[in-house]
Amino acid sequence: MDAVGLFHKRRSVRAYLPGREIPDETLRELFGLVALSPSSYNLQPWEFVVVRGNEGKEKMFSCSKGNSHILSSSATVIVLGKLDPSGDAKTIFDDRVAKGQKTEADRPAFEKAVARIVSSAEIARLWATRSTSLAAMTLMYAATALGLASCPIEGFNEECVREKFGIPNDREIVMLVTLGYEDESKATPRGHRKTVGQTVHYEKF
Amino acid sequence: MDAVGLFHKRRSVRAYLPGREIPDETLRELFGLVALSPSSYNLQPWEFVVVRGNEGKEKMFSCSKGNSHILSSSATVIVLGKLDPSGDAKTIFDDRVAKGQKTEADRPAFEKAVARIVSSAEIARLWATRSTSLAAMTLMYAATALGLASCPIEGFNEECVREKFGIPNDREIVMLVTLGYEDESKATPRGHRKTVGQTVHYEKF
Repeated sequence: MDAVGLFHKRRSVRAYLPGREIPDETLRELFGLVALSPSSYNLQPWEFVVVRGNEGKEKMFSCSKGNSHILSSSATVIVLGKLDPSGDAKTIFDDRVAKGQKTEADRPAFEKAVARIVSSAEIARLWATRSTSLAAMTLMYAATALGLASCPIEGFNEECVREKFGIPNDREIVMLVTLGYEDESKATPRGHRKTVGQTVHYEKF
Repeated sequence: MDAVGLFHKRRSVRAYLPGREIPDETLRELFGLVALSPSSYNLQPWEFVVVRGNEGKEKMFSCSKGNSHILSSSATVIVLGKLDPSGDAKTIFDDRVAKGQKTEADRPAFEKAVARIVSSAEIARLWATRSTSLAAMTLMYAATALGLASCPIEGFNEECVREKFGIPNDREIVMLVTLGYEDESKATPRGHRKTVGQTVHYEKF
């Protein structure tokens, strides 16, 4: 598949061939590509819980609002955003200095930016959601590139997922993403799309 | 370029060949690919302001926190999320019914979901940021697929951008994305990346 074809090929797929496991090596390759996503200050706030077992998928389904494709997926991924990136900040800034992209003179501004992220719960949630959603989109495109299909899910009971999968309160549950092998016999037409003319302005709003 | 290569090729590029314009046709193709992004309830809350003129880029630079690559970019895109999707909801649900993916019996639950989005400013901002960030990531990958380079920017003065580009208060300014042709003579090494082992959990957190 060529790179432009990827955008046409990716669909939100809810019909999977049941019982097909994703090989460990494919999952490692997939999350290796996800790791290349960009993020605010390169802080990479994303984490993932990959649920492959039937028991886990049953639990996830019980927290979802009728998203039964969780049950036929090969894996459902809980996509998390760290609300406090300060533990990672030093490693990431030190790397920039080592690569000559920043100097020690830039460190106070970087530390101030990190302090701003954690200055309020609302800012932290927005911040973590923004960068983590970039990684979630990468996850879906990378899945397509590796022959998998995916579907993002926002309809779930957050407290239920938090409790059943042990998600700590300092992680935002940004979305769920199902992964699997598409049952192409059940392919559906792509949903309505806004036109470029409806969404793009030039020079000013 | 093959689809897997896309993830390795995309970088946050700050060094562009100055003075190169992006053809109108390339921009249309680019935003046509962005339109294929997934979104919550397929509500596609994203909008874009493409700033190509020197005057516009100077204004944008004045609102940014020293992001001088705005000035050498071919275009800088203001990525917006609509905070109130209710005006689009009917068209999108009608399309699902027409395609046999939903029935009229599902309409009240859909309308309830849309009402929940607009029930608080915080929920609306998180909701719009989530789906719009998916489209922003598509914008960056699609740019790469079409031979462009890109860089996301979160460091800007929101009120300044809002005022200078006439952005109404019911649009969230999710991020800026510069677009241009990379000056490959100034390529830098990729920043530190967390390992798959650091970010992926299996079955539970």
